[in-house]
Amino acid sequence: MTDRQPIVTLLTDFGSTDGYTGVVKGVLLSLAPNVQIVDVTHDVDPWDVQAANWIIANTYRYFPTGTVHVAVVDPGVGTARKPIAIVAGEGTFVGPDNGIFSSVIAALANAEIYELTEPEFWLSPVSATFHARDIFAPVAARLATGTNAGRLGKRIGSETLTRLPCPQVVQGEGWVEGQIVYVDRFGNLISNIPISLAHPGAGCVVDGRNIGYLAITYGSAGKGEAVVVPGSHGCVEIGLSQGSAASALKAAVGSTVRMELRQ
Amino acid sequence: MTDRQPIVTLLTDFGSTDGYTGVVKGVLLSLAPNVQIVDVTHDVDPWDVQAANWIIANTYRYFPTGTVHVAVVDPGVGTARKPIAIVAGEGTFVGPDNGIFSSVIAALANAEIYELTEPEFWLSPVSATFHARDIFAPVAARLATGTNAGRLGKRIGSETLTRLPCPQVVQGEGWVEGQIVYVDRFGNLISNIPISLAHPGAGCVVDGRNIGYLAITYGSAGKGEAVVVPGSHGCVEIGLSQGSAASALKAAVGSTVRMELRQ
Amino acid sequence: MTDRQPIVTLLTDFGSTDGYTGVVKGVLLSLAPNVQIVDVTHDVDPWDVQAANWIIANTYRYFPTGTVHVAVVDPGVGTARKPIAIVAGEGTFVGPDNGIFSSVIAALANAEIYELTEPEFWLSPVSATFHARDIFAPVAARLATGTNAGRLGKRIGSETLTRLPCPQVVQGEGWVEGQIVYVDRFGNLISNIPISLAHPGAGCVVDGRNIGYLAITYGSAGKGEAVVVPGSHGCVEIGLSQGSAASALKAAVGSTVRMELRQ
Repeated sequence: MTDRQPIVTLLTDFGSTDGYTGVVKGVLLSLAPNVQIVDVTHDVDPWDVQAANWIIANTYRYFPTGTVHVAVVDPGVGTARKPIAIVAGEGTFVGPDNGIFSSVIAALANAEIYELTEPEFWLSPVSATFHARDIFAPVAARLATGTNAGRLGKRIGSETLTRLPCPQVVQGEGWVEGQIVYVDRFGNLISNIPISLAHPGAGCVVDGRNIGYLAITYGSAGKGEAVVVPGSHGCVEIGLSQGSAASALKAAVGSTVRMELRQ
Repeated sequence: MTDRQPIVTLLTDFGSTDGYTGVVKGVLLSLAPNVQIVDVTHDVDPWDVQAANWIIANTYRYFPTGTVHVAVVDPGVGTARKPIAIVAGEGTFVGPDNGIFSSVIAALANAEIYELTEPEFWLSPVSATFHARDIFAPVAARLATGTNAGRLGKRIGSETLTRLPCPQVVQGEGWVEGQIVYVDRFGNLISNIPISLAHPGAGCVVDGRNIGYLAITYGSAGKGEAVVVPGSHGCVEIGLSQGSAASALKAAVGSTVRMELRQ
Repeated sequence: MTDRQPIVTLLTDFGSTDGYTGVVKGVLLSLAPNVQIVDVTHDVDPWDVQAANWIIANTYRYFPTGTVHVAVVDPGVGTARKPIAIVAGEGTFVGPDNGIFSSVIAALANAEIYELTEPEFWLSPVSATFHARDIFAPVAARLATGTNAGRLGKRIGSETLTRLPCPQVVQGEGWVEGQIVYVDRFGNLISNIPISLAHPGAGCVVDGRNIGYLAITYGSAGKGEAVVVPGSHGCVEIGLSQGSAASALKAAVGSTVRMELRQ
């Protein structure tokens, strides 16, 4: 067992109840024996393409470079939105062109992008409602087992792709302002402000409310106390020791976060 | 790695909280090294044998034919209901004889059915409450690694098996009537009316209420609008674009669905 | 494929929503190709170290002996609590020293315990909030692929470890008293009274309330009826046939359970 098994990751909003992810795995294993399947999550809020975009962008880099990442949160399934594959040294990505790969594309400048146009590699017939099973899983299985992306579709320019609006970070003298871009299961508020921009000792203001100063760790705070920490994704994160910062601060995706040096 | 790893799928109502599924996987891996374990779902509503029956029937055909499918939703665990294995070219099935395989048995006419009667292949002692661990996982591990089902039990006739009532589809001139047989995580209402019976352009009436006409895809509808589509399972399905049809239409498993050609 | 793949199990409170477990798996697969990853659970209530301790103690023995068990429920992440590895013939355990392995350590008298002190085996930099990714997964990957624990840390005595209070069972003449130590997804109340101590025919009293007599199986009871059974973990368990005993009896972890022979 010296050879690495091919790896396919799955990120969907299918939930865990209905067996839909089991079906996708069956298709993968039928076409790519011995593929190693890793669930990233199937519990993205239904149709929340933005959350899926954040998760995939913060996950793929921890996998071996040959990994194929399938991401399907797809409110437009069955419409004209394109099925695509993104091929880069850092990984291969398969899913709908609806913005779900916005951050991946922004990060991987040299990626090759393919519109999936070759139905002979799909299940037949293709349903109108379950492209993860009928298109994306079969394509991922081929890519994981070495089929060249050029056989599965035609190369397209990245400028043709759908992108989500990308919240910007604004910098001034002694302050930097961004937004909450993700709220996790613990109620941690994750911003888009890179740690490198947050001055040590800077105060944190969420939606106009003083939260505290950049600390080192959640664990150092008293229970129920808000803490501002360098998050594990490389950005400023606001948490509550053993509680939900989102609930306590009534903050959510889109809330303004300002880090400022006090005078 | 030219040989395919044996595959065992798991479908239970054990939930993901308590580690019960981890225990089952430990038993499988102890007895069948290198088995590939696939979770179909562990979030069937507790004791909902009917939902489990629907899921397994719509899942197994997407797996390689040698796959062993373990399905345990088992309100009668510890009583006289038989543990069984169903062996067919399309797959092997292991679980309690309580109707959970009703649709599988109906679909696989040539299946051989075995009552599991040989405790030397089980864990010892067998608990009264956790047969997935003590009986079904050990048996699945043997079947996945090549033990003949005849060694694990005795052949029985399919007429002896417990079956769930099977909702029928009734056809008239210009109409066909069936039922909702499953509601998924998105609130999609899945009927038992095969697409092949639903005349193009037929109107859909759920519990006496006009819903609309058979369309092609969810994506083509406006947000919050009900749509009647050819579902990915081959039957008529009623959804709501980016919303729950079940909630909006107050429909559930058992609701009547009528497809009719208007004059 | 004659060699067994190394197995790593994961038990966390990370939930299934955010992709955190996917990241951990990516790290494992990057450092230990072909490792077989088994989710025990990721749905422990946030920061519930006690529940995690119960689950790991009731899970590990069902896995092959070489298995590496990673358990991370870690309210003190980023503080001075030690990262540890526990190496025993029965399995290897990796996680924080916060009591999560209390029952494992009590059960495995001959285990060797190591404080993880060698950062060259970790991801770099180590975040303050995600040690599962940065420390525990990399260490587990090394242990699963044969690195000696002595290279990863320094040996420490088990008496230095953090332990949870361990509820005791008290015995008198004709009675034995313990506690509910776990409540599962079905609402089953699981006590710490070993079956071997519960006299056949003994009555069960929960928080002063008569529940019934030790029976054999859940299935034998009428729907909604409380039953006292020999649980699958070897202790007395109180359930409700097709319902939640916890809700019906308003009992929880810490409730008193008394088994007594009536005169």
